Amino acid sequence: MSSENPFSADNQQERPGIEQWVVGFTDGEGCFSISVVRNRGCRLGWQVQHEFSVTQLAPSRPALELILEFFGCGSIIENRRHDDHRHDLARFSVKRRSDLVETVVPFFEQYPLITAKQHDFDLFSDIIKRMVKGEHLTEGGLRLIAMTTERMNRRQRSQFLESSEAIRQPAHVRS
Amino acid sequence: MSSENPFSADNQQERPGIEQWVVGFTDGEGCFSISVVRNRGCRLGWQVQHEFSVTQLAPSRPALELILEFFGCGSIIENRRHDDHRHDLARFSVKRRSDLVETVVPFFEQYPLITAKQHDFDLFSDIIKRMVKGEHLTEGGLRLIAMTTERMNRRQRSQFLESSEAIRQPAHVRS
Repeated sequence: MSSENPFSADNQQERPGIEQWVVGFTDGEGCFSISVVRNRGCRLGWQVQHEFSVTQLAPSRPALELILEFFGCGSIIENRRHDDHRHDLARFSVKRRSDLVETVVPFFEQYPLITAKQHDFDLFSDIIKRMVKGEHLTEGGLRLIAMTTERMNRRQRSQFLESSEAIRQPAHVRS
Repeated sequence: MSSENPFSADNQQERPGIEQWVVGFTDGEGCFSISVVRNRGCRLGWQVQHEFSVTQLAPSRPALELILEFFGCGSIIENRRHDDHRHDLARFSVKRRSDLVETVVPFFEQYPLITAKQHDFDLFSDIIKRMVKGEHLTEGGLRLIAMTTERMNRRQRSQFLESSEAIRQPAHVRS
């Protein structure tokens, strides 16, 4: 990534240190999430969803636009809130696997997080790399991914692992 | 602040861009707060409290220690939680006025925030500077400070302004 490093200061002359701002902001507000969800259209009946996201109140949307511009991928989604909160929420989100593989994961490998969120990133990165090898397409690989998600911060028991269908009737997925 | 700039990269060679990490982390998790609270020991019966803080779950305490080391002032306070949360909270806190005046405010003036939190910082900085001039020691100045706190994010009506004593009996504070 040396001379063509998309994150180098050369490409961000207007904002020196922008990489570390992105790291600090992600340390504070970023989220690396993996979910194994029911999808009967998938070969094993389960789909692995992956997302890097940063959520803000709508008035701070310009900060998300800066991140969008910085990474050159993903999108910003606004969620209208109907409760008594003053502001809607805006979320910068990268879900496409190629964007995660080629842009998001290499960036945070080059510029590590400082908080305990680095642990989440390590597991997230590990799963993304397993998926590049197609490991999520085998039952054993999918199970390993689901077990890894349970080690990520604030995660509950994996629905996939809890599913009696997945646990007690593994044969059908091989048929 | 040129050659003796305490925040210059020269003083942080181990972590290039640390200033922008601090800005990004503060954009995410920082809080600039001002409260006007009852204190009969003060001349006007009210005290202005000021704090810059960054709160994290205890496993991310090293990130707060980095900020503590960076600013060279403030302290880290751990709050044990007795509810069903997994982790205690840790808070980096700077309350001393001289630390805010000489260190925190100049830093964020040199390295502006990117989110809407900049608006909070502008009001915070304005109040701190008024206090340096002693404006909080006059009833009019205190009232202006209390009115400014109401324009800060997520603030409720100022207790000082709500106080019937402060509103209806201003004469006693001049006696």
